Amino acid sequence: MLSLSSCLDIITREIIILKDENKQPVELYQPIHYILGLEGKRLRPALTLMACNLFTDDISLSVKPALAMEVFHNFTLLHDDIMDNAPLRRNQPTVHEKWNNNVAILSGDAMQILAYQLICQAPSSKLKVLIDIFNTTAIEVCEGQQFDMNFALRNDVSLEEYIRMIELKTSVLIAASLKIGALCGEASETDAQKLYEFGRNLGIAFQIQDDYLDVYADHKLFGKTVGGDIVENKKTFLLIKALELAKGQQALTLQNAINSRIFDVAEKVMQVRQVYDDLNIPQSARASISAYSEKAFGFLDSVIVPDERKTILRQIALELINREK
Amino acid sequence: MLSLSSCLDIITREIIILKDENKQPVELYQPIHYILGLEGKRLRPALTLMACNLFTDDISLSVKPALAMEVFHNFTLLHDDIMDNAPLRRNQPTVHEKWNNNVAILSGDAMQILAYQLICQAPSSKLKVLIDIFNTTAIEVCEGQQFDMNFALRNDVSLEEYIRMIELKTSVLIAASLKIGALCGEASETDAQKLYEFGRNLGIAFQIQDDYLDVYADHKLFGKTVGGDIVENKKTFLLIKALELAKGQQALTLQNAINSRIFDVAEKVMQVRQVYDDLNIPQSARASISAYSEKAFGFLDSVIVPDERKTILRQIALELINREK
Repeated sequence: MLSLSSCLDIITREIIILKDENKQPVELYQPIHYILGLEGKRLRPALTLMACNLFTDDISLSVKPALAMEVFHNFTLLHDDIMDNAPLRRNQPTVHEKWNNNVAILSGDAMQILAYQLICQAPSSKLKVLIDIFNTTAIEVCEGQQFDMNFALRNDVSLEEYIRMIELKTSVLIAASLKIGALCGEASETDAQKLYEFGRNLGIAFQIQDDYLDVYADHKLFGKTVGGDIVENKKTFLLIKALELAKGQQALTLQNAINSRIFDVAEKVMQVRQVYDDLNIPQSARASISAYSEKAFGFLDSVIVPDERKTILRQIALELINREK
Repeated sequence: MLSLSSCLDIITREIIILKDENKQPVELYQPIHYILGLEGKRLRPALTLMACNLFTDDISLSVKPALAMEVFHNFTLLHDDIMDNAPLRRNQPTVHEKWNNNVAILSGDAMQILAYQLICQAPSSKLKVLIDIFNTTAIEVCEGQQFDMNFALRNDVSLEEYIRMIELKTSVLIAASLKIGALCGEASETDAQKLYEFGRNLGIAFQIQDDYLDVYADHKLFGKTVGGDIVENKKTFLLIKALELAKGQQALTLQNAINSRIFDVAEKVMQVRQVYDDLNIPQSARASISAYSEKAFGFLDSVIVPDERKTILRQIALELINREK
């Protein structure tokens, strides 16, 4: 079985191959090489390779599709960063900051096509089924991003709507990365779908953990400002749950925090966090993370391959959910 | 054989089917329905259907791929309009004006995926070959757009570079629309490639005609301001050719026109047009249009189907090249 670091080595090598310096016009390709070189977690392509590796020792057929998932993910980051007006990505200037908005729009467009070119390098017998999964997932990610933007303008988002949004924006791509890898490894449709469900539930747990860490992480470990979501009134699991439960003075405190245009950042974070604590929101979040994780692991358990082949995938999933940054 | 208006009826019907009003979130899908409803020439999907119809009376298999070409083309318009900061498209507000930039970016992204979903509805035996053509074409269109943006910042663009740019930005999509239609109609690879070359040369002629009309159209027929390209110093066939040929006072007039930041619009158009006239630029443009058209028709002539099946395609090509608006 391949280790995580072997998988990451394969991805790194493939990204270097992708960086053909002779491609013209350089203004289109440089930003693509730049964002792919920023070295994120590369979780999605690693999951594709590992899902393939569950079923076969020869993972070569899953390499280009794995890369497709990474390129697509980075395309969404590139365009999301324009929409969010974000100055930094992985502690480096975002593409629209380093170049400009037009470059970021067009390079993103080209990355989406590049992702399709990579998925089309899958074995032709699997092309139709893989591209159908990819198409469905890609459009769902766009839908998720739009729901997220809509939620920024609403104060009545339900927890159910929120979970559906993060499922679309985050989970389905993790799920599809696993399913596509499994199918490249000749998994049965049933097993491939179980891996999809493993990824879908894991992705939801992962995002709620993200929301949780934004408020409750140890700032020495976290690497970004704790409480950023509170400052921006971001509709997270924590805020939505708190808005649902808060009554009287607590509700008033939350409403004031959300509506105040001029505020002391530290004070706002402290006040909202106090309401969260009083309402046992961190416990709710952790319970929800546990519930989705358990569901996820249930699906992984039911995949019909020897248990020892699942060790690495299980370990990575645990690390994702229990991470502190 | 299908008439142009029958082809357009098919496309209109398909676009109505595409407008599923129940799709959520509406904020993502409304702009897509809006731009597809603006009713442009719908040249590309019509060419796909007609190319298929050259080889078979049953064009049904080419309908979804035809629609893919139209959706992809409209995606490029949507994102180009953001980049150009264009207020109007087909005399209606552009998507980024009617909504905002973020909506336009994300809806455009979704349209690109939608185009792939449509091309994937081609018969599965042809999927690989069609999607390979589509991928190559799509990335070339992005490259063309980037070259076009680069040229705006340069004054030393050669005619050869310019032709290559319009080939990428405009012609290859017309060419691919024809080739994809032909392949859906069971054309041989040779005939399909001849139709590609027909479209490629036709597209170049079409774009030079566009440049020509911007300066020499009858403003009563043209429907937009004559001379817009001159006002914006757009690197067109006319300006590039004139910059190549101009000497002495003519060169000075052109340089002054390009470099002046404050100018009288009518005077600038008149002065540049006078240089064009003195250098026989309109004759050059028309000669070039004729040369590319002749090449195009040569390819159409050599396609091995009875000549009478080519009548409509030939007629449409002639209309495109001889149009006065």
